[in-house]
Amino acid sequence: MTTSSEFIALAQGLLQQCQALHQQGIAALAQACQTPRGLSAERLDQHQLLAYDIAWTSAELLAAQTALCEVASAPDSLDAELALVFTVEVITAVMPRLDMLCLELSLDASSLQTLQSSAAWADLRRAAGSEAALARAGQRLQASQGEIGEVHLDASIRLVQETFQRFGQEVVAPMAEHIHREDLTIPETLLQPLREMGVFGLSVPEAYGGSGTGSEDDNLIMVAVTEALSQASLGAAGSLITRPEILCRALQAGGTEAQKAHWLPRLAQGQPLCAIAMTEPDHGSDVASLTLRADRVDGGWRLTGAKTWCTFAGKAGVLMVVARTDPDRSLGHKGLSLLLVEKPSTEDHAFRVDQPEGGVLTGRAIPTLGYRGMHSYDLSFENWWVPDSHVIGEASGLGKGFYFNMTGMVGGRMQTAARACGVMRAALLAAQRYTQDRKVFGQPLTHYTLTQAKLARMAARFVGCRLLTYQTARTLEEGGSLASSLVKLLACRSAELVTREALQLHGGMGYAEETAVSRYFVDARVLSIFEGAEEILALKVIARGLLEQAWRSTAASISTQAPASAAHSAAQREPA
Amino acid sequence: MTTSSEFIALAQGLLQQCQALHQQGIAALAQACQTPRGLSAERLDQHQLLAYDIAWTSAELLAAQTALCEVASAPDSLDAELALVFTVEVITAVMPRLDMLCLELSLDASSLQTLQSSAAWADLRRAAGSEAALARAGQRLQASQGEIGEVHLDASIRLVQETFQRFGQEVVAPMAEHIHREDLTIPETLLQPLREMGVFGLSVPEAYGGSGTGSEDDNLIMVAVTEALSQASLGAAGSLITRPEILCRALQAGGTEAQKAHWLPRLAQGQPLCAIAMTEPDHGSDVASLTLRADRVDGGWRLTGAKTWCTFAGKAGVLMVVARTDPDRSLGHKGLSLLLVEKPSTEDHAFRVDQPEGGVLTGRAIPTLGYRGMHSYDLSFENWWVPDSHVIGEASGLGKGFYFNMTGMVGGRMQTAARACGVMRAALLAAQRYTQDRKVFGQPLTHYTLTQAKLARMAARFVGCRLLTYQTARTLEEGGSLASSLVKLLACRSAELVTREALQLHGGMGYAEETAVSRYFVDARVLSIFEGAEEILALKVIARGLLEQAWRSTAASISTQAPASAAHSAAQREPA
Repeated sequence: MTTSSEFIALAQGLLQQCQALHQQGIAALAQACQTPRGLSAERLDQHQLLAYDIAWTSAELLAAQTALCEVASAPDSLDAELALVFTVEVITAVMPRLDMLCLELSLDASSLQTLQSSAAWADLRRAAGSEAALARAGQRLQASQGEIGEVHLDASIRLVQETFQRFGQEVVAPMAEHIHREDLTIPETLLQPLREMGVFGLSVPEAYGGSGTGSEDDNLIMVAVTEALSQASLGAAGSLITRPEILCRALQAGGTEAQKAHWLPRLAQGQPLCAIAMTEPDHGSDVASLTLRADRVDGGWRLTGAKTWCTFAGKAGVLMVVARTDPDRSLGHKGLSLLLVEKPSTEDHAFRVDQPEGGVLTGRAIPTLGYRGMHSYDLSFENWWVPDSHVIGEASGLGKGFYFNMTGMVGGRMQTAARACGVMRAALLAAQRYTQDRKVFGQPLTHYTLTQAKLARMAARFVGCRLLTYQTARTLEEGGSLASSLVKLLACRSAELVTREALQLHGGMGYAEETAVSRYFVDARVLSIFEGAEEILALKVIARGLLEQAWRSTAASISTQAPASAAHSAAQREPA
Repeated sequence: MTTSSEFIALAQGLLQQCQALHQQGIAALAQACQTPRGLSAERLDQHQLLAYDIAWTSAELLAAQTALCEVASAPDSLDAELALVFTVEVITAVMPRLDMLCLELSLDASSLQTLQSSAAWADLRRAAGSEAALARAGQRLQASQGEIGEVHLDASIRLVQETFQRFGQEVVAPMAEHIHREDLTIPETLLQPLREMGVFGLSVPEAYGGSGTGSEDDNLIMVAVTEALSQASLGAAGSLITRPEILCRALQAGGTEAQKAHWLPRLAQGQPLCAIAMTEPDHGSDVASLTLRADRVDGGWRLTGAKTWCTFAGKAGVLMVVARTDPDRSLGHKGLSLLLVEKPSTEDHAFRVDQPEGGVLTGRAIPTLGYRGMHSYDLSFENWWVPDSHVIGEASGLGKGFYFNMTGMVGGRMQTAARACGVMRAALLAAQRYTQDRKVFGQPLTHYTLTQAKLARMAARFVGCRLLTYQTARTLEEGGSLASSLVKLLACRSAELVTREALQLHGGMGYAEETAVSRYFVDARVLSIFEGAEEILALKVIARGLLEQAWRSTAASISTQAPASAAHSAAQREPA
């Protein structure tokens, strides 16, 4: 007889073994790609598939470790049971990847083989991966009345969360299908109460009219509100905070005092609404190559060029445009600045603005499979006039647009994970309800062990993603940048998988547009594309970050061992 | 240095080892579920997850074995390379399932562990699963001008295939987006040429005005035409043949000579078009519980009840309705008959027909995510009059509806696999083109090894599914019923995976409705739901069939060993 706590400890031990092997793999790949001056871009390119797998393994291991850590204090809870189910899923997925990593990099795979045939792994699978275990977890899920993936939140945050959950279910959800199927713009009847509830001020400091306190609570609230609204609708509410979050962070990172004093209170009130114009038709994820030109003119700049996938650009009254203010293309991302473009707000799918100064801005909403309500626009700027006062940081902000934008992007990724969690939760709940109501072969669908197992796995995945999302929110300001990319990667793909299974459990009804789960499915599909497409995130952010870290520690250890480096040798003699 | 032929032999050997272990698992599960009188339904229900996994493993192993067999004669071809890639994917997916099967059923897993750490498995992965191998396969795919998943077809079949491919690309494809996005009914400008090309007569024997010869060629042609049209559009053309196929097979299986003489020539000409009304709102996959009532009246029947998901019911001039002609519900599927309902053809999304005899039929198209063009209808019959002449088989057809329908369903599954192949091919080609055109970080996407690896895996999956689909068509009439379920299961899920990856490779553009791949993605999602939802197919058809087979062979071997059975003992003494 093994207690739940013992299984958690067992699972943690197995994860540690996987993690150790994974670290060896990362170190070996870094070594395979290293040159005296750093990692070789060419060799990294040859190893993209390994790097991609490393990113996924990192995300999954972190999520499982975090989940086990979170549930350890309540080992008999449903959450603990689901965290164990999730861990079995993770280890099962990770093992073949680690095996391949060993094969490719000629690492000793014997510890993996030992692990695979170990009694511990067999015990854990019997406890949380067998059909009996999954059926039990599914039954317990269906019988449970409470929340799953529960995180500790202070009473004040809990209150905000509940307020938005209620608003989501009572106000947003009933309008969501209509907005989606008619491809409408989010109506003022939704936006106005959200403004009044302070949704746009969450990332704005109190001193500037928002509710941000500068503590980790800001991120927790943002995640909780985003999740709650996304559960009701990704497009009609759940994504509203991402844009002000990015712009407010950029303003705080680089804006002049006058800019902060002017814009932050307005943005906090959602007057104007805002949008971020970064992606270009020929440059999706390749920020350093952006070409939209800002030409220097007396007292300001003239913008010429195209942007695309600018979400909410119609309804927005101000756009943050990433533009090239330095004509020297070789500067890459160091030639970019952030310009604020004011324009009239419109619900139209196409618009044209003519400036008195002669500039023209046209926009066209791109019809999409889902994520409707905000619309993503193609934009074209022709000789569009922007005064110096509208460059974030003014003269001293020139060339720093990339950096100002980055802090917001990290927050945006964490928020996107929260969006994914909201969509997953909605799909899971829909599947739970439907399988209880729908009878097949004389019994409710939920009676069958396959249904129970599917629900258990979906719930386990949701729990794993949710716990990591909130944990990321807690630690974001103390260097959670990698975590925000890892959780974005994992939660978005997980939302695809969970909505796919939820739809499948609905049978034909799941494919009908009248059934909410069909919307969750098409909405979820955008998540792995925007806010860092998964390939770019996996390769350029996550794997690159991990490999550089590994390279630096190798380089450090080499230089500390090198007798030529007296300073380092001295350092080596210090106690650790 | 190992030759391609040797790798194919190596891969076949590994598959055989997996297959042997898999068979042991099936036998052990059958034993765990057996009673003296057969398999225990209750125990089968407890083991649904294992049964589900067994179905997937069966499908994947069969596909890989078939693919290797098909390419063995051209071991240096791109197809052979892709078949090996596919085999690595299959073995990687199958191993953890087999491992779990061993754990659950207390089977000795040592042969699996030996396999996992074998030099053969390492060699095969280096050759066809490593990043270098996948990149090479992807590059070769992108450089290749020819078809992949090539099957041998006679010149006459090839000609038909090419004709429909050309029609698909030149006539259907340009209209597909419009039909999808406007949710239109397939227009006569598409239907009329297809009628003239004989598309509706493919499953009708020559003697009845079709082009069927009664040979395996009929199935090959049907698959080739379905695939070609589905590549252009699943909804606007690729699914047109499924319904006449099911109805014509039912008529041939059970119709009177007069019925065949009346209906087959008309159906062959697509005048009228037809639809199949089987599914009911409360009974999706549970045919034995269907409740739509046919009440006996003088000279015929009165239909009362509802059907749902009746695809093409608006445009159809005749519906094949599965109805309960025997009021004794305990008869289950033995109380069902097939009734032909004539009605006016309409392109409307809602219709109502009032019979002179007082019956009413109403229909409403269910809005769906994709698979548009034919529309699937909710139908309601009120006291609808059907003369005796319209019961398939007339008096002797009563109670045999289930059986008449079954032959068509088996063909329908094979055809659905062909539909999945068409959608996959379209998505793969779109991804191949897009990644060649689209530049990221200064290079076409296809330049990157991750892209190459993704394309190689997508192509490998397509090749695996396609080769099995055509092989199933060749052998369908000699007992390919299980194969048609296996290939339906695998190809449909594969179409989801391939369209997902194809969309992902398009980045944001993939999510735009203006890009064809977004339509492939939502169209593909229906495939695992209709024509046998994957759970039902996996559990009730495939696993059930395999377990019963295993049970019968055990039962046979037990009874042959039993001294009480003199006859069997005698048989046992015969030379094998």
